[in-house]
Amino acid sequence: MSPEACVLCERVAGDGELHVADLLTARAYLNEDQFFPGWVHVILRRHATELYELSVAERAAHIEDVNRGAQALAAVYRPVKMNYELLGNQVPHVHWHLIPRLADDPDPRWPVWRTEHDPKPLRAEERIERIAAIRRALAVRA
Amino acid sequence: MSPEACVLCERVAGDGELHVADLLTARAYLNEDQFFPGWVHVILRRHATELYELSVAERAAHIEDVNRGAQALAAVYRPVKMNYELLGNQVPHVHWHLIPRLADDPDPRWPVWRTEHDPKPLRAEERIERIAAIRRALAVRA
Repeated sequence: MSPEACVLCERVAGDGELHVADLLTARAYLNEDQFFPGWVHVILRRHATELYELSVAERAAHIEDVNRGAQALAAVYRPVKMNYELLGNQVPHVHWHLIPRLADDPDPRWPVWRTEHDPKPLRAEERIERIAAIRRALAVRA
Repeated sequence: MSPEACVLCERVAGDGELHVADLLTARAYLNEDQFFPGWVHVILRRHATELYELSVAERAAHIEDVNRGAQALAAVYRPVKMNYELLGNQVPHVHWHLIPRLADDPDPRWPVWRTEHDPKPLRAEERIERIAAIRRALAVRA
């Protein structure tokens, strides 16, 4: 896939109402579906498909961005466990799913993908509040 | 969970027939179920639950181990896409699922977890051959 045709290249070129923060190598966005509260995407700013297309230094900086996102989500949500997934089966542009797995998770032993559910987009005020909380947690670590 | 009670601490203390390689911060093992060919675990050698419990330097070294494993699997399997997942919902000790998603994948747009299947352990000679192929690919990069 060329970067020109990549929906995540388009995403990181703009902010949009789900934008959370700009990190060193990546931009963070709230997942529109908040059935799992706090699900965030950390998207590499440039186009690459696999981790091994990055330089060693870029990979180190990128995992710091991923880590910083995870730590902020952990501070906000106090999860039982954080999940970190770099898949790209649908959009082959390096992006991570950071998913705090909370105490009331419907299927806590398994990844989120087996939990059939109706998507749960937030109302505007809830979305703004959720993003603000994550931004505050990121700022503490900045 | 204390390290004393952690099954992955036990795993990395020994080799076993699924052991693939020792990396700088981690040990690699073939997943016993090879329904998805090439599925490998990269397990942090010391006990930690989350990425943010590692130092910056340790995290950088660890992502290099993960990356090296992924690159070796990509060389052997020529996947459409690599999947990298750090979950720990069942065993909260930092370990990665590295899963090459091949051209004949049964559900290529989704993570592997939704694909119900009977586990596919390999016969001894197949297992040994598969591990040898991955070791050769790792050696090229060593």
